[in-house]
Amino acid sequence: MIIDIHGHLSAPEGLYAWKAGLLSHRGAHGLRAPSLSDDQIREAYFTPNASFGDVSHFDHLDGAGVDLQLLSPRPYQMMHSERPAKIVEAFTTEVNNVIHRSVQLFPDRFRGVAGLPQSMDLPIEQWLPELRRTITELGFVGVMINPDPYEGLETPPALGDKFWYPLWEALVELDVPAIIHSAGCRLPAREPYSLHFIQEETVGVWSLLNSDVLKDFPELKIVISHGGGAIPYQVGRFLPSGVRSGATPYLERLRKLHFDTCLYTQDAIELLLRTVGVEQSLFGTEKPGTGSQINPETGHWFDDIHLLVDDIAWLTDDQRAALMHGNAQKLFKL
Amino acid sequence: MIIDIHGHLSAPEGLYAWKAGLLSHRGAHGLRAPSLSDDQIREAYFTPNASFGDVSHFDHLDGAGVDLQLLSPRPYQMMHSERPAKIVEAFTTEVNNVIHRSVQLFPDRFRGVAGLPQSMDLPIEQWLPELRRTITELGFVGVMINPDPYEGLETPPALGDKFWYPLWEALVELDVPAIIHSAGCRLPAREPYSLHFIQEETVGVWSLLNSDVLKDFPELKIVISHGGGAIPYQVGRFLPSGVRSGATPYLERLRKLHFDTCLYTQDAIELLLRTVGVEQSLFGTEKPGTGSQINPETGHWFDDIHLLVDDIAWLTDDQRAALMHGNAQKLFKL
Repeated sequence: MIIDIHGHLSAPEGLYAWKAGLLSHRGAHGLRAPSLSDDQIREAYFTPNASFGDVSHFDHLDGAGVDLQLLSPRPYQMMHSERPAKIVEAFTTEVNNVIHRSVQLFPDRFRGVAGLPQSMDLPIEQWLPELRRTITELGFVGVMINPDPYEGLETPPALGDKFWYPLWEALVELDVPAIIHSAGCRLPAREPYSLHFIQEETVGVWSLLNSDVLKDFPELKIVISHGGGAIPYQVGRFLPSGVRSGATPYLERLRKLHFDTCLYTQDAIELLLRTVGVEQSLFGTEKPGTGSQINPETGHWFDDIHLLVDDIAWLTDDQRAALMHGNAQKLFKL
Repeated sequence: MIIDIHGHLSAPEGLYAWKAGLLSHRGAHGLRAPSLSDDQIREAYFTPNASFGDVSHFDHLDGAGVDLQLLSPRPYQMMHSERPAKIVEAFTTEVNNVIHRSVQLFPDRFRGVAGLPQSMDLPIEQWLPELRRTITELGFVGVMINPDPYEGLETPPALGDKFWYPLWEALVELDVPAIIHSAGCRLPAREPYSLHFIQEETVGVWSLLNSDVLKDFPELKIVISHGGGAIPYQVGRFLPSGVRSGATPYLERLRKLHFDTCLYTQDAIELLLRTVGVEQSLFGTEKPGTGSQINPETGHWFDDIHLLVDDIAWLTDDQRAALMHGNAQKLFKL
């Protein structure tokens, strides 16, 4: 059985056409969501997509043997830094609604992971009604948190900052994990999203482990996307100061977080598993997405991460089961 | 034989006391460098330092069997973003002078790598006289370039930007390598330097490989510090778009750069060598520095990277020799 915790919704073009309108009229024409039919939503998962190698969302999942995928918003579309905040709120709500409808249409294949209206023009408390709605009313199993809601325009309070505490409190109360996954980046001198994910997730891990968050919220469940950004590879930089300061050893702190396997080389996945431990790692592909391109050298999709895991010879059967589904079942209560 | 391309100078406290004065009076008391004696400079390399595990610079080099080390400025001290620019210029010149005197005092152990007065208040052309002075007059073998001279306060033009072309032209003309190594970070919500190194070096690689720099300057020699930041670990993210766009394959582009081994875990070093190739990798330790702490689990210094390389069983003798000294001799013409 394979559970993929890192999937993003596929949606009818009408959703994004509506978003383009919101960005043009900034809410002046109203915020009413477009009328998307169930057929349109269903079709979005069956229609071949040029960005995803000319096959469909389900072609990707079926081809990789993914039994259940957690669906979150498509992060680079989230536009948390756009103004006024009400267009961020309206868009986030509708994206979550489309995720919910996707889960209802395919209850055996999907579970929902919410986005929040992370406008920095709103007090963080105002992000929380949407969290509560998606978890308690729509049955979502987690939430995706963008550590940089400014999308590069300003420096956000790092995840260890008290700024985030109302969110952590709510997550502990609701007992759902946060998946840390950055969104867009609006600086022309920086990459617009993919590298920004890695960068801000890296800062996120650094900040969490150098803060009191995991002491103050021992029940908090956090998953870092994309194999933890740079941290597992660069972990050696952080071990010495951990010893020097007499703090809890760095690896011990690191292993209080969870990580997904969304890395597209076997070497990287092995390094992740050895560094953070298989028990802290969850299978995730971001499929279809960045890696949905056939590798001409192997004939496989770059994001066929299950094949890379298959090739890791040192995993025991128990570890393999934990990585591919068991850890996710436990963490997300699936 | 071991050549360590990633060393930073040790200096008498007088150098940094003078810097503190420059930052206080902003040049109003003049820019005249302090009088540091040869004995003081010599002593700096023999004096045990609490930050470096209570042993000296030479204790570290001797203990690790480093025969020759390239000495560059201590990056987090460089203060490229301080104003007025004349204090950056004065400090950089004096740091380079102390490096030069260190090389003169220990000609069998050190070679110089210059810092440049990378104030963004100066036109980039004004950084170049110091480059020419250090290379042609002082015999330095390379230059250290900070990809973020704003030190986090603003977004710098990425390394692929035409902004940097006068520097690349001068480097090709002088035929010396640039070591890309970030400096400080002044944002309280970010880590002040160590993680910033990784972050900005990551952006640097991304930008160089998505630009025409390596086409426009095929002779340019670039070394990325700290094992290339996040890129070798996250390289899978960049392979698919390389195929999609029909550009030169990403790994082929990546292997036009060089990388040092300044990573403190064997897993990370192995991943680096496998990803970029041994022929593109140069031994570097940043020793004494971040890793100069005894690992309680092994009894060795974290930055005893030669021991980690020793344990990589699959390296051939030729590869080992290239990694530990041959590649550096060739690239830096030692």
